[in-house]
Amino acid sequence: MERIPILRMGETLLVTIQVDMQDQTAMALQEDLSARIASTGASGVLIDISALEIVDSFVGRMLSTISGVARILSATTVVVGMQPAVAITLVELGLSLEGVRTALDVERGMALLQRLRLENARGA
Amino acid sequence: MERIPILRMGETLLVTIQVDMQDQTAMALQEDLSARIASTGASGVLIDISALEIVDSFVGRMLSTISGVARILSATTVVVGMQPAVAITLVELGLSLEGVRTALDVERGMALLQRLRLENARGA
Repeated sequence: MERIPILRMGETLLVTIQVDMQDQTAMALQEDLSARIASTGASGVLIDISALEIVDSFVGRMLSTISGVARILSATTVVVGMQPAVAITLVELGLSLEGVRTALDVERGMALLQRLRLENARGA
Repeated sequence: MERIPILRMGETLLVTIQVDMQDQTAMALQEDLSARIASTGASGVLIDISALEIVDSFVGRMLSTISGVARILSATTVVVGMQPAVAITLVELGLSLEGVRTALDVERGMALLQRLRLENARGA
């Protein structure tokens, strides 16, 4: 079974999705990511999907689930690099990716996470 | 044809290799990466190969070639996340990845690039 690598960069975990997600790969990613958030105490997760030309409802749900799990583990998920056509498909499928934050690219995603960290620190 | 996404993070371009490289994918990556180095003026390239359990002489040569091309375009390449078994195979194949810098993970690779940037700035 293929496993998608999770790269740690400071307080952020970065995942680049390049292959079409199958059930098993998606489940493995979810498990690996939860374990890594817990073990590293990461406060942010960046998921780059710029390589995906098609996102079906399965992948859409997976992104929502990962985001939900991460939130419970006190990490914010930002999905980056979504192609315009993918955004259109998602909306047409009725998947609004609720609760999932998005950014245009990794740099902006990083900046967003940084801003949220500062806000949280101020609020605490 | 699959294309491997190239993520820009400041002055560094990050590539995560997850699929077994075929000739066409490797050629496309080489071209895309050269174009991105030129268009962004990136000074560093990080190639994560933590997902690769097997690196044959083809991939070994590809890493050397990418590194060589990047160098001519004034960027330093750091290969990160190599599994110990892969390192053993490479040496057994007689591929010492000459001219290719390595680091244990993305964070250390980033730190290495940062250090090299400072050294260059001081030397200039």
